[in-house]
Amino acid sequence: MRVTTLGGLGEIGRNMSVVEYDGRLVVVDCGVLFPEDHQPGIDVILPDFTSLRDRLGDIEAIVLTHGHEDHIGGVPYLLKERPDILVIGSELTLAFITAKLKEHRITPRTQHVEAGDTYHAGVFGLEFVAVNHSIPDGLAVAIRTPAGLVLNTGDFKMDQFPLDGRITDLRHFARLGEEGVDLFMVDSTNAEVPGFTTSERDLAPAIDHVFATAPRRIIVSSFASHVHRIQQVLDAAHQHGRKVAFVGRSMVRNMGIARDLGYLTIPHGLVVDAKKLESMPDQKVTLICTGSQGEPMAALGRMANGDHQISVGEGDTVLLASSLIPGNESAIYGIINKLTDRGANVVHKGNAKVHVSGHASAGELVYCYNILRPRNVLPIHGESKHLHANAQLAVSCGVPAERVIVGRDGMVVDLVDGVATIVGQVEAGLVYVDGETVGKATEDTLHERRLLREGGVITVLALVDPTTTTLAEPPEFLTRGFVHDDHTFDGASAEVTTALARAAEQGVTGIDALEQAISRAVSRFIQRRYRREPVVIAIVVES
Amino acid sequence: MRVTTLGGLGEIGRNMSVVEYDGRLVVVDCGVLFPEDHQPGIDVILPDFTSLRDRLGDIEAIVLTHGHEDHIGGVPYLLKERPDILVIGSELTLAFITAKLKEHRITPRTQHVEAGDTYHAGVFGLEFVAVNHSIPDGLAVAIRTPAGLVLNTGDFKMDQFPLDGRITDLRHFARLGEEGVDLFMVDSTNAEVPGFTTSERDLAPAIDHVFATAPRRIIVSSFASHVHRIQQVLDAAHQHGRKVAFVGRSMVRNMGIARDLGYLTIPHGLVVDAKKLESMPDQKVTLICTGSQGEPMAALGRMANGDHQISVGEGDTVLLASSLIPGNESAIYGIINKLTDRGANVVHKGNAKVHVSGHASAGELVYCYNILRPRNVLPIHGESKHLHANAQLAVSCGVPAERVIVGRDGMVVDLVDGVATIVGQVEAGLVYVDGETVGKATEDTLHERRLLREGGVITVLALVDPTTTTLAEPPEFLTRGFVHDDHTFDGASAEVTTALARAAEQGVTGIDALEQAISRAVSRFIQRRYRREPVVIAIVVES
Repeated sequence: MRVTTLGGLGEIGRNMSVVEYDGRLVVVDCGVLFPEDHQPGIDVILPDFTSLRDRLGDIEAIVLTHGHEDHIGGVPYLLKERPDILVIGSELTLAFITAKLKEHRITPRTQHVEAGDTYHAGVFGLEFVAVNHSIPDGLAVAIRTPAGLVLNTGDFKMDQFPLDGRITDLRHFARLGEEGVDLFMVDSTNAEVPGFTTSERDLAPAIDHVFATAPRRIIVSSFASHVHRIQQVLDAAHQHGRKVAFVGRSMVRNMGIARDLGYLTIPHGLVVDAKKLESMPDQKVTLICTGSQGEPMAALGRMANGDHQISVGEGDTVLLASSLIPGNESAIYGIINKLTDRGANVVHKGNAKVHVSGHASAGELVYCYNILRPRNVLPIHGESKHLHANAQLAVSCGVPAERVIVGRDGMVVDLVDGVATIVGQVEAGLVYVDGETVGKATEDTLHERRLLREGGVITVLALVDPTTTTLAEPPEFLTRGFVHDDHTFDGASAEVTTALARAAEQGVTGIDALEQAISRAVSRFIQRRYRREPVVIAIVVES
Repeated sequence: MRVTTLGGLGEIGRNMSVVEYDGRLVVVDCGVLFPEDHQPGIDVILPDFTSLRDRLGDIEAIVLTHGHEDHIGGVPYLLKERPDILVIGSELTLAFITAKLKEHRITPRTQHVEAGDTYHAGVFGLEFVAVNHSIPDGLAVAIRTPAGLVLNTGDFKMDQFPLDGRITDLRHFARLGEEGVDLFMVDSTNAEVPGFTTSERDLAPAIDHVFATAPRRIIVSSFASHVHRIQQVLDAAHQHGRKVAFVGRSMVRNMGIARDLGYLTIPHGLVVDAKKLESMPDQKVTLICTGSQGEPMAALGRMANGDHQISVGEGDTVLLASSLIPGNESAIYGIINKLTDRGANVVHKGNAKVHVSGHASAGELVYCYNILRPRNVLPIHGESKHLHANAQLAVSCGVPAERVIVGRDGMVVDLVDGVATIVGQVEAGLVYVDGETVGKATEDTLHERRLLREGGVITVLALVDPTTTTLAEPPEFLTRGFVHDDHTFDGASAEVTTALARAAEQGVTGIDALEQAISRAVSRFIQRRYRREPVVIAIVVES
């Protein structure tokens, strides 16, 4: 049996792994990673499918553990390569992926499973275990082959009092442990966090306090997939006699799905259209909207910028019942400040207990190790520091250090006679989605964008007499994002003249070479005089 | 008496205020603000000096409360406008600003003051109060005029057991309170944080634990101005028989200043040159370096990237004894992950108690309000949410709400008969330092850079026959940061032809107008076909 980790090791996102036995494959999850500051202009980042491309026909199925973007966002791109791959998941997960695929005009072949189910995908015996997470209907998956058993947790935590009563099934884990787990692939996100993730239910007092004391409208923002969090808000609104409207495309869509499938319980008449709320007294109004991560184009961001039909004002209460994903802090704080400036009282993670994580902390992971007693451990779903922290937990629970694999994307692990060993590495680079292009934006593209971002661009147009290699007239300088005035380029023309003279002297000809000489001369001029490094594009036209 | 707040209200940075009486001025602080993601390429941001520019001769002095960049970083730019302004501050603060001004080739006129001192700057009676902060030798300043008394805290907290024994002098605050504080300008940074900021001394166990257990080298990173934090590290190193070297320009310079002035106590033989450590056994080595905020060019960032002569490896311990400034998280986490990948054990704020804030939390601020009982309160040093939170604390301590001013940069407040009132607003926009230019980069510049960052740039060269307004040959497309292949611009030439034909039809002439028509046509083509929005620069050359 062979396991290849295509994503999620060394990053929080684009989770994907492949289990192979006897030439056949099962894929577990296929998510996207969101770009960071040093990857400007990129929409999302995919796992690299290169190692699968010649073997698409060998894939028995893709198992989706839950419906978050970092686990399902890459599926449309995989299905574009082979549309009839069987997609296996729980009811809500399948509903979310089907809605997403519809936007890509793909109708997937699906298999619905529930916790406790087993399903045979060719040679693979799949068994599904209920896990609790920040989206309902999460599943861990056990994959049985004659060579051993792999257990992949997906994302999970062990809330003992979840709103839907559906706890991570430790009795099921225990049965698998007694049978013998050969390789335990386990969520590392919160492995550095000591203790236990508190219960979703523990947020009730703070949410209730907001509803009990807010003098005017209440505007709640949260992840559009966090059904339990939204349920808590709905319950509080109902109890305090307020009406609720959903605002923002993904919020409206997801809550519709969750309600239709019974994951969201909405008392009759509680939820109304946003338009209807306009005529109601402020103290009867609740809006639940997108934008909790500071996205400028989502509903909350537009409200903060005064760019939304719903205008936030004096006395309104904004409840950010959500996490602060690293990298988004500045944007979120910016929105909190703008809402505060508009007179709103903003309640957020920083000043009230209105968020808990969706991932198991160190204390919970330790329980898992002790219940499962796995032979080999492969921490997944985390940056390096998280994977290392999780590995240390495994070792502290008695798993031999040489049986704990801290890996990287693309790592190939073979399981032979109950021993997991790294045997190779496949391509696992970052595949950038950039507008309509997939995999065409390169590190060079991003490097150029970073240069453009820092210094702007100068285009130099030089009319050159080809017989003498001299300027036919002074060069023209066009700029974008580069600070200049009427005299900025005084002296640059002389530099271009000198560069051309030197080129002529050295017998350099050809437009490309002259353009290079000119752009180098202008770059140096700007660097020396202004300590700036804009991108310089020279264009030579022969006169 | 009039107070104008030129910076620090609505942002953490570029702190600056001006007190005016009888036509004369005292400036308190003059700091820089560091740019955010939406201000690419900007080095630092200054307060706007416009309202002072005609009145430079009226300035009696500038008082610097402490030596942090967000309080002194703008001084070189102010002194460039009038070099002989008297600079008043404590010993360490003056040493830091003098070293900074030396880099700008300015020798300032200075006045050294100590806690408890009074100093007459023209009509202004200045009195200095010891405050405790994350840099030694901080001062609050009371400014007396016949119209009333203003107390500006600078940055402070109320550590009751500071390493240097120099606590925020509440007996002095009490005397001022009994005399009567007409306007209390007070640090808001941690006003949202409940309770009390714990003591710097409380970090000792975690720091000691690192030194007691680290098997090989210890590499510590912290702010280069955090003398007390560095002192704790030095003490631990000494106690555990390690030697220490400072690494990084600002760390070496500042610790030299602090040692020479007696703010840092270094046991004989403890600190050695970094080169000397190379020949010592790893378990005897401590390096204290810059880069705790994830700056890629600072020592720690270069070590993480394997780009520094000091190579971090298996068994090394890295101690990040520093804060996580919002906006820097991703960069810092990136460095932690890279160091972890190199085999280092990274101890940081997230997994050990190795940092405390330098600012007073809500509980401490409440003490101040009750001791001072100020007539009017002006929260300073904070984003909107911090200013509002601080205002609420003042009100909760009995300051009438109408005497608490939540203001903005540029606000002008008059104090008449003990009542502070907003009477106007002066220019207080963001003044960008961009390479050698000051105040020339505009919001348009930044907008263009953001566009370039997201989509790259396409330069279109069109040779146009001026008599027919038609292309003399197919246009050329040059790109930077824009994803393309050999066929990307197929069809674009036709769009340019059409645009020129339409221009000719409508009688549009002139190179500028044709360039606009072409760039619009190409932008639309790219947008429609690739859903991208690069910057398009068209250049028309008449053939």
